[in-house]
Amino acid sequence: MTKIEAINVEYYQVPLAEVLSDAKHGDHTHFELILMRIRTADGFEGVGYTYTGGKGGRAIFSLLNDEMKPLLIGQDSTEIYRIWDQLQWHFHYVGRGGLLSFAISAVDIALWDIKCKRINQPLWKVAGGVSQRVNCYAGGIDLNFSEQKLLDNIQGYIDRGFQAVKIKVGKTDYKEDVRRVEAVRNLIGPDVTFMVDANYSLTHEQAIRFSRAIEHCDIKWFEEPTIPDDYLGYAKISDATNIPLAMGENLHTIHEFTYAIAQSKLGFLQPDASNIGGITGWLQVAQLAYANNLPVCSHGMHELHVSLLASQPNAGYLEVHSFPIDQYTTRPLQIENGKACVPDLIGTGVEFDQTLLNPYLILQS
Amino acid sequence: MTKIEAINVEYYQVPLAEVLSDAKHGDHTHFELILMRIRTADGFEGVGYTYTGGKGGRAIFSLLNDEMKPLLIGQDSTEIYRIWDQLQWHFHYVGRGGLLSFAISAVDIALWDIKCKRINQPLWKVAGGVSQRVNCYAGGIDLNFSEQKLLDNIQGYIDRGFQAVKIKVGKTDYKEDVRRVEAVRNLIGPDVTFMVDANYSLTHEQAIRFSRAIEHCDIKWFEEPTIPDDYLGYAKISDATNIPLAMGENLHTIHEFTYAIAQSKLGFLQPDASNIGGITGWLQVAQLAYANNLPVCSHGMHELHVSLLASQPNAGYLEVHSFPIDQYTTRPLQIENGKACVPDLIGTGVEFDQTLLNPYLILQS
Repeated sequence: MTKIEAINVEYYQVPLAEVLSDAKHGDHTHFELILMRIRTADGFEGVGYTYTGGKGGRAIFSLLNDEMKPLLIGQDSTEIYRIWDQLQWHFHYVGRGGLLSFAISAVDIALWDIKCKRINQPLWKVAGGVSQRVNCYAGGIDLNFSEQKLLDNIQGYIDRGFQAVKIKVGKTDYKEDVRRVEAVRNLIGPDVTFMVDANYSLTHEQAIRFSRAIEHCDIKWFEEPTIPDDYLGYAKISDATNIPLAMGENLHTIHEFTYAIAQSKLGFLQPDASNIGGITGWLQVAQLAYANNLPVCSHGMHELHVSLLASQPNAGYLEVHSFPIDQYTTRPLQIENGKACVPDLIGTGVEFDQTLLNPYLILQS
Repeated sequence: MTKIEAINVEYYQVPLAEVLSDAKHGDHTHFELILMRIRTADGFEGVGYTYTGGKGGRAIFSLLNDEMKPLLIGQDSTEIYRIWDQLQWHFHYVGRGGLLSFAISAVDIALWDIKCKRINQPLWKVAGGVSQRVNCYAGGIDLNFSEQKLLDNIQGYIDRGFQAVKIKVGKTDYKEDVRRVEAVRNLIGPDVTFMVDANYSLTHEQAIRFSRAIEHCDIKWFEEPTIPDDYLGYAKISDATNIPLAMGENLHTIHEFTYAIAQSKLGFLQPDASNIGGITGWLQVAQLAYANNLPVCSHGMHELHVSLLASQPNAGYLEVHSFPIDQYTTRPLQIENGKACVPDLIGTGVEFDQTLLNPYLILQS
């Protein structure tokens, strides 16, 4: 009765209110959302999803619809880790992270949704159960904003109740980045937490030079100074400055996190459940972080990650991302006294509002 | 005039003559072949391709057709490394190896085909130019063969002129693997080169136990004893036995090869141009191997790799793979005195015979 009986896959392109830019991915005009709905013989429906910054979504749709759907039909929806492991190995030759991890994530999140609904509990309890409030920050994608617009945007975050903010860096002239960082710190005062993110655009030399130049601004972390593949380069940068490093959104297997922890001298880990293998993968990283005495943070899809951070004792900061997926759900993220509130919904806490999403549907099975 | 004017993408499912099995991927009933044809304004046509063991091909087709084709049209076909780098970074968020590397490979091979045709030279000279003959071995996918069938198959390789053979290992009881290895060595005598391949199915303990048990059989290399992500595990296995280790077919970025060389104490590197980023990616690995005093070998698509091995001074062994892609070309691989002969064709040397391939066409743009 717990068997998977039906699966639907949907692919959306959701436009952003304005063009958002960072140092390595260029302009974002929309994000892609790929949904997988799984229904069981005993009447449960789970909704899983993943997203991208605008590229590769159709390939993910193909993996989910053409390859995984036939493999999943008839399987027991309660055997989540077995299915997760099966997907990793069945598609291993074209996998080991990369695009495959996005597809596995959508499947896994749908199965966790069913798992929670079956026992009538919210995700934050099923995954651990620690707190109903988590630290969070507003993550701007603002590299192309003028300094005035940057400051207005940050003020908007503060006005909405955020007590932590992050900006993009990686301008052609690093001194402009330094000026922008100083201007933001001047605006927010000494008590607001402040991070910077270079989207792996810098060389070792550039990263160290920039990091040293902003040490006086009390920076919580310096995110992705250089390419994520360069584990030892991170350690070199970390040794050269007093600002802790953070990364994770581009690490797509537990092995990649293992290398990063062992070699990169990171201060914060930022797994993204949409590309690390879903909730199963995110929790693997959270436990690896715990074992290594590191806080676990998140990247993107804050409407889901809020429950995951709330489930872990070593929770760091939830990123409230500039892709507003939560605005297309029945329960957009709520901030109270600077903290994000876990949804009290049964399941993952993410229920899409189809009235809002339907206009952006491109493909469905 | 050298601009890319038109692109076609084709997706084939080519059946195998019989079901082939290994220890980790299970049964193969067919392979997938994804072709990209690029035509330039001045009339050159290049053919690139990649393949899989049967899964993920439609997602590769989507990446090539939906994402890369629009990006490539109008670009200068002679700026290969710029295009290669652009594809890596443009799709980085869903990339860093994995499935993306297969798609980039097809594009890159097509551009190299054009590059060679433009200067009226064969690939083995354009990529370096060292020798017209390369060492090669027959790579069986034979784990499910009975011992008699295994021996008959090996005898077939010897009869076809091979002087090196490889078999699959990874049976439930390792003692059966040991018996099969001993039987093959007994059949081929002391002078034929002999490798074994576990397709990363073993634990450290199993790999070490098995490797020690076949040390008396003069094994050239032990391929993929355990999961490719476990770089340090390879070093541990290497330290425990006297059989050199080999891997590479599952490493999809130059960074992954860098980790493997630094950490895994390998004896042989086996990049596959169909998933390491094409000829550009394969040559990167060849040069890294050269710099580290290691032979560079290959995995799969022997009809192309023969020219790449022939281009390099540190060439090891060409795998003649059990997926007979070359049988669908106008010039199947030729073996003379145990060595593989480079094709004397202008371009990559791989021209598909559409009469043979057309029956297996599934999708095209």
